[in-house]
Amino acid sequence: MTTIGVDLGGTKVFAVRAGSDGAVMAEAKAKTPVQGGPMAVVDAIVKAVAELGGAGGGDDELPVGVGAPGVVDVERGIVHAAPNLPGWTEPFGLGAALSEALGTRVVVDNDVNVGTLAEHRLGAGQGASNMLGVFVGTGVGGGLVLDGALRRGPTGMTGEIGHVVFRPHGRVCGCGGRGHVEAYAGRAGMERRARELEAKGHDTVLTELAKAKRMTSSVWAKALAAGDRVAIELLDEGVAALGQAIGGAVTLLDVDLVVVGGGLADRLGSSYVARVGQAARAQVFAGHRVEVVPAKLGDRAGALGASLLVT
Amino acid sequence: MTTIGVDLGGTKVFAVRAGSDGAVMAEAKAKTPVQGGPMAVVDAIVKAVAELGGAGGGDDELPVGVGAPGVVDVERGIVHAAPNLPGWTEPFGLGAALSEALGTRVVVDNDVNVGTLAEHRLGAGQGASNMLGVFVGTGVGGGLVLDGALRRGPTGMTGEIGHVVFRPHGRVCGCGGRGHVEAYAGRAGMERRARELEAKGHDTVLTELAKAKRMTSSVWAKALAAGDRVAIELLDEGVAALGQAIGGAVTLLDVDLVVVGGGLADRLGSSYVARVGQAARAQVFAGHRVEVVPAKLGDRAGALGASLLVT
Repeated sequence: MTTIGVDLGGTKVFAVRAGSDGAVMAEAKAKTPVQGGPMAVVDAIVKAVAELGGAGGGDDELPVGVGAPGVVDVERGIVHAAPNLPGWTEPFGLGAALSEALGTRVVVDNDVNVGTLAEHRLGAGQGASNMLGVFVGTGVGGGLVLDGALRRGPTGMTGEIGHVVFRPHGRVCGCGGRGHVEAYAGRAGMERRARELEAKGHDTVLTELAKAKRMTSSVWAKALAAGDRVAIELLDEGVAALGQAIGGAVTLLDVDLVVVGGGLADRLGSSYVARVGQAARAQVFAGHRVEVVPAKLGDRAGALGASLLVT
Repeated sequence: MTTIGVDLGGTKVFAVRAGSDGAVMAEAKAKTPVQGGPMAVVDAIVKAVAELGGAGGGDDELPVGVGAPGVVDVERGIVHAAPNLPGWTEPFGLGAALSEALGTRVVVDNDVNVGTLAEHRLGAGQGASNMLGVFVGTGVGGGLVLDGALRRGPTGMTGEIGHVVFRPHGRVCGCGGRGHVEAYAGRAGMERRARELEAKGHDTVLTELAKAKRMTSSVWAKALAAGDRVAIELLDEGVAALGQAIGGAVTLLDVDLVVVGGGLADRLGSSYVARVGQAARAQVFAGHRVEVVPAKLGDRAGALGASLLVT
């Protein structure tokens, strides 16, 4: 069945027309509107869908799935908190607004959930009964497949491995919590710490490579390749944080496959994922087995997973 | 429906004849045989079942559920590793042996799983869709109910919260691992540490209260009541370990109810469980809600849960 999947990100909207086998027939990209709040986002998505031939006004509109950042009420199509979307300060019924504008069925879920779904059905987790998806980028997100089905849980926030505590009373996380995995392994947390260390006199090429901009995944990769001590130390800590949290998740859940993706993990590649796997296995309870493998779908996982919501 | 439930422990066999509503009609107790290995255990269980009127040789034998320590293959009725059962060094088909001896249907599961099942169906977790059961005694066990059903997972070892890492490279756990929750919060781990501290010159009433025996839950309760510094400090660490692991489990699984039982938790009572709850909530990701409540069934949870395996 052909459907449309939309990955709604903080900076861009990426949409695909795809078969349920993951074959992508067409793509559309747009910038996420920085003004106008949720209604401007609705317009941007409607345009992208139209570009894919999905909103012609006929009787055979393609159904649309959307992966959105933040907390999503899947049943009602409401995106509650979305700190990464400009002007999205109140809960908004994205599903209903899009469905009305497009005249078709629309399902909205959290972006990490749809990424996990995509890796499970079409990527590195194909055929697995149980899988933890871990996405390492600006932050660290996670999603959980148990007994073949995506677990959403009562609040829709299952799999939040980025906000598991790694070091009690440790670094402040973007969410305000203390010592969370994301504060150590996510790009934003590592950047904050790198700038602190430089301000304290530690020598690092990270700020130079980043220039006036953010420290992208490429910046980290280059600093590592250059043997930068600060970059190496921060990455080591991130690997330790992910390893401890994944090890705990495996011990608790008896999940035997962990798929690691996201911008930073994709850029640093299989050696990074292998190190995370090694750290995780060192902390797994005897008797549990776990494979930790790189994600396969790259930055298409979100849109593809969204397209699967409506197949 | 009336069934028989057997709690097979390291020191005693406790069996009940019970209705599926948890009403206990009769009880039988026996010592776990210290010699003769698995076949002696089978004999002891057969006797206990006969005492309950469950093995008269007629056509209407009551089905029997068994909760056994260690790793259990539920489908095949095999108890693999059972370090707490004397002479149980090889995997043994307890289900088949009992079924043949009793002429009835027998289901065997892990003791912590059946305790969790009992608290979920008949105890503090009644009606909950999602529940984590945590049992704090000599060790720390855990079981998981997700979407109304006990999760067993691919290895049958789901919910092993006692073996989640609390402090990397920390105290050695009974399982040989490092820094596990059980090494800090379980009675055996706390006792080992208390004896170490005393050997190092710390003043404590724990060894005196225990005399030449183990530090039972009552010993800990008395030492706490007496304001013993070592006991207070070790209990504090145990609460912190449980809090961190439970907080992580809630963040990861979106489980909103945690039931805390087991010999030590039962003895220390609701104030102990409340402190564990407070520690857990302090580490839970914003947006998750969790109630941490005392178990209700005490040391009958195992036998009652076992009886539920065959209803």
